[in-house]
Amino acid sequence: MSQAPLASDSQAPLEGLRVVDLTQVVVGPYATQFLADFGAEVIKIEHPSGDLARWIGGRSPTPGMAAKYLHLNRNKKSLALDLKKPGALDALKKLIATADVVVHNMRPPAAARLGLSADDLIKLKPDLIYCSVVGFGQQGRYRDKPAYDSIIQGASGLAAINNGGDGQPRFVPMVIADRTVGIMVANTILMAVVQRMRRGGPQVVEVPMFESMAAFVLAEHMFLKTFEPPLGSPGDSRLLDPNSRPIRTADGYICVTANTDAQVFAMFEAMGRPDLRTDPRFADKRARFENIGEMFRIRNEIFATRTTAQWLEILEAADIPAMPLHTLDSVLEDPHLADTGLFEKIEHPTEGTITNLRNPVRFSTYEPQIKWPAPHIGEHSVELLQSIGLDDGAIGALLESGATVDFASRAAA
Amino acid sequence: MSQAPLASDSQAPLEGLRVVDLTQVVVGPYATQFLADFGAEVIKIEHPSGDLARWIGGRSPTPGMAAKYLHLNRNKKSLALDLKKPGALDALKKLIATADVVVHNMRPPAAARLGLSADDLIKLKPDLIYCSVVGFGQQGRYRDKPAYDSIIQGASGLAAINNGGDGQPRFVPMVIADRTVGIMVANTILMAVVQRMRRGGPQVVEVPMFESMAAFVLAEHMFLKTFEPPLGSPGDSRLLDPNSRPIRTADGYICVTANTDAQVFAMFEAMGRPDLRTDPRFADKRARFENIGEMFRIRNEIFATRTTAQWLEILEAADIPAMPLHTLDSVLEDPHLADTGLFEKIEHPTEGTITNLRNPVRFSTYEPQIKWPAPHIGEHSVELLQSIGLDDGAIGALLESGATVDFASRAAA
Repeated sequence: MSQAPLASDSQAPLEGLRVVDLTQVVVGPYATQFLADFGAEVIKIEHPSGDLARWIGGRSPTPGMAAKYLHLNRNKKSLALDLKKPGALDALKKLIATADVVVHNMRPPAAARLGLSADDLIKLKPDLIYCSVVGFGQQGRYRDKPAYDSIIQGASGLAAINNGGDGQPRFVPMVIADRTVGIMVANTILMAVVQRMRRGGPQVVEVPMFESMAAFVLAEHMFLKTFEPPLGSPGDSRLLDPNSRPIRTADGYICVTANTDAQVFAMFEAMGRPDLRTDPRFADKRARFENIGEMFRIRNEIFATRTTAQWLEILEAADIPAMPLHTLDSVLEDPHLADTGLFEKIEHPTEGTITNLRNPVRFSTYEPQIKWPAPHIGEHSVELLQSIGLDDGAIGALLESGATVDFASRAAA
Repeated sequence: MSQAPLASDSQAPLEGLRVVDLTQVVVGPYATQFLADFGAEVIKIEHPSGDLARWIGGRSPTPGMAAKYLHLNRNKKSLALDLKKPGALDALKKLIATADVVVHNMRPPAAARLGLSADDLIKLKPDLIYCSVVGFGQQGRYRDKPAYDSIIQGASGLAAINNGGDGQPRFVPMVIADRTVGIMVANTILMAVVQRMRRGGPQVVEVPMFESMAAFVLAEHMFLKTFEPPLGSPGDSRLLDPNSRPIRTADGYICVTANTDAQVFAMFEAMGRPDLRTDPRFADKRARFENIGEMFRIRNEIFATRTTAQWLEILEAADIPAMPLHTLDSVLEDPHLADTGLFEKIEHPTEGTITNLRNPVRFSTYEPQIKWPAPHIGEHSVELLQSIGLDDGAIGALLESGATVDFASRAAA
C-alpha cells in the first residue's frame, strides 16, 4: 500500500482524526474509546441531561460520573446539546462540517427526522465517514425494532448456550453484545479511514448488532450444521459440556488447559493416572473428543484432593498450562497486571483518586495514555462552540436557553 | 486527515494489503478473517500437518476441513511450510519482504529462535507492520506463560462472575477470550496501517490477551472499586443478579429490556401490576437499582403465566423491547437473518454445500464477499512460491523434502 507520511510531532496513530460521537451508553462509546486512546479527537455529543451511562453505572462522588461511564469516556471531550432547542442543530452541523467521522446509534428514521441522515451530512462534508450502529440490518424485517444488550444476547443464541448446571438459559453477566459489537464498530471505522485515505470519501457504513453477534456465536457453534446435509447438530460439545469449567481444588479453583497429546498425557501422569494414557477412551484426540465429559469428570474428582498451590506446582513442573481462578477482587491485585501498568491511579478533578484502565496494546512508537479523565456534561461545550466560530453572544444564547450547558458555569451555580 | 487516493478498480477497503499470517487456531485467524473479508490478501502459513483448528473443530466431509476452521479462514490463501526443513525459512523470508503486515502468536523467544523477531524481519522489509499476539505482556512476570482461552477466561475474572444458579464459576461456552481479543488484534493492525500510511513504517505492536480481557471485564465490573477509597465492591449487581436472565414463559423463554421509567412503568402495566409504579421500591431508577432482585422476581412469576407469543403481542403494543430466546437451531432459521443474507450457501470444491457466514457490516461502496472458501493445506503453496521468484527446481525440492505441500499433488496422491 502507498505511504503518505505527514509532518507531525505526535506519534499517536489516529492523531488529527476528528470524530463526532452521537452515541451513548455502551456500544458506541466503547468503540470510540479505542479511537480516543490512540489519539483521535472524539467529541461526545450529549443531551444536557447526560449520557445514560453516567447514571446507570452506579454511585459516584459527584453526580453523573459513574465508574462505568468513566471507563468508557476517558480522553474524550463533551459537548452538551439539546437538539430540540433553537441553534443546537445548527451548531452540531457546523461541527460535523469539520469532522472526519460521525458515528451514531439512533434508529435511522429518527436520525433522518433530525436532519442527520447520511445524505444530509455528506452535503456538509463531502468526504465524511458516516457510521450507523443499528440493532438490526436495515435490509431486514426487524429493521425498526429497538435493540438492547440482553435482547441481542438472547436472539444470537448466546444466552441459550450459557446454561451450565441446570440447563436454564442465562445472560453472560456483562453487556457483552454491546461490548463485542463495539470493538467491531471501531474496526469498521478504521477500515473506512483506510479506504478514505486511499480513495477519498464519502463512506457510509452500517454495523448491525444482531447479525454481528449471531455471526460471532455461530462461527463457533454452527459446527456440524455448517455442512449440507448436516453432519450433526450445531454446538461444539467440547465447549458446551457442563464439566468444561474451572476445576475445584481442595481450597479454590484452578483453570487448566490440556489439548495436545503431550499435554493430556502429562496431565494424566500429574494426576497419578498414567494408565489413562492407554485407555482407548482417551488415547488420541478423536477418542477424547468423543469422551470428553468422562475425561472431565475423572479429572475433576482427582483435582479436588489437593490445594490450588499444590496443583500449580505439579502442573508447572509438567509444563501444563494452568492458572488459578481470579475473582473481580483478586484480578485487581494481580502482580503481572501491576507490572504491565494496566491499572493507573490518577487524580480526577472532581472524583478524587480513581483507577483507570490503560489500553494494554503497545506500539513501538506509541503507548496509549490517559490524557484526561472522562469529562463532565458539557465540560468542553464553550471551547468547541468557539472553535466552530460561534461568538460570545451566540454561545450565551445557547447557554441561556438550555440548548447547551457548560460545566464551569454549572459548577459555579 | 490527509487523503491519498489510489488508482484501483476495486472498492474493497483493504485491497492490496498483504498480510503474512503465522497464527493458528482462533485468536489470530479470527483477526485476519476481518481483514480478508474486506479485501486484504491474507496468506496463511501452516505447518504441512495443518492448523490445529482444522482438526479440533469436529468432523468434516474430507479430513482437516472442520466447520470451525471454515468459518475462520475463508478468503485466505494457504502456504504450507515446515520451517525446520531446509529452504522453508528462506522462502518465508522472501515472502515477508513483499508483505505489509506480519502477525504471529508464537511466544516471543520462540519467534526469535526461528529468526522471526521484529528486528530480523524489519531488516527484510523496512516499513513492515509486525504484530505479536501474546498471552501476557512482555513487560510483566507472566511473560513466558502459555495462554489458552480457558486460562484467560479464568484469569480475567469472567469465569468467576459467570456463576448464575449455583454460584460455581463457569466458562462462557465459547472461546470468547480468543475471539474478543481477535477483534482487538484486527483493530490494532488497522491502526498501525493508518499510522504507516501517514508516517511510514516500521511499526511493532504487541497485543496481550490477559491484559486485554482483564480490561474488557473490568471496564464493566471494576465498578465502585474504581474510586479510592472504594464506594463499594466491584461488580455491577444489576448484571450479576441471578434473576437477570431470559424470562420463562408458559411455553419457552423471552428476553425483555425495560430500563427507562417509561419502559418500566409500561411493563408494570402490561404485567397487570400498575400499582408497582408507585411502590417506593420501584418508583424511580435509583430505587429500582437497589431493589432489582425483587423486581426481577415479581416479573419472572407473572411472565410464567402466559405464552411467549402472548407476551410478545402485549409488549409490542406497549412499545417495550422484547424478543424470544433463540437456540442455536432456531437462530439459523431466523427470517431477518435470511433477509439480510447472513447465511450464504456456497459449493465448496471438496466439502459440498456449506453455509458461510457473511460479514454483516455494509459499506456504501463495498459489501464483504466470499471470494473463495477456506483453503486446503497448501492449496496456494505453488503459486505463492512462484510469485516470490522460486523456480520449478526449487519448488520441487521443497515439495520433495516435505518442507511444503501442495494440495493438488496431495489430492492426486
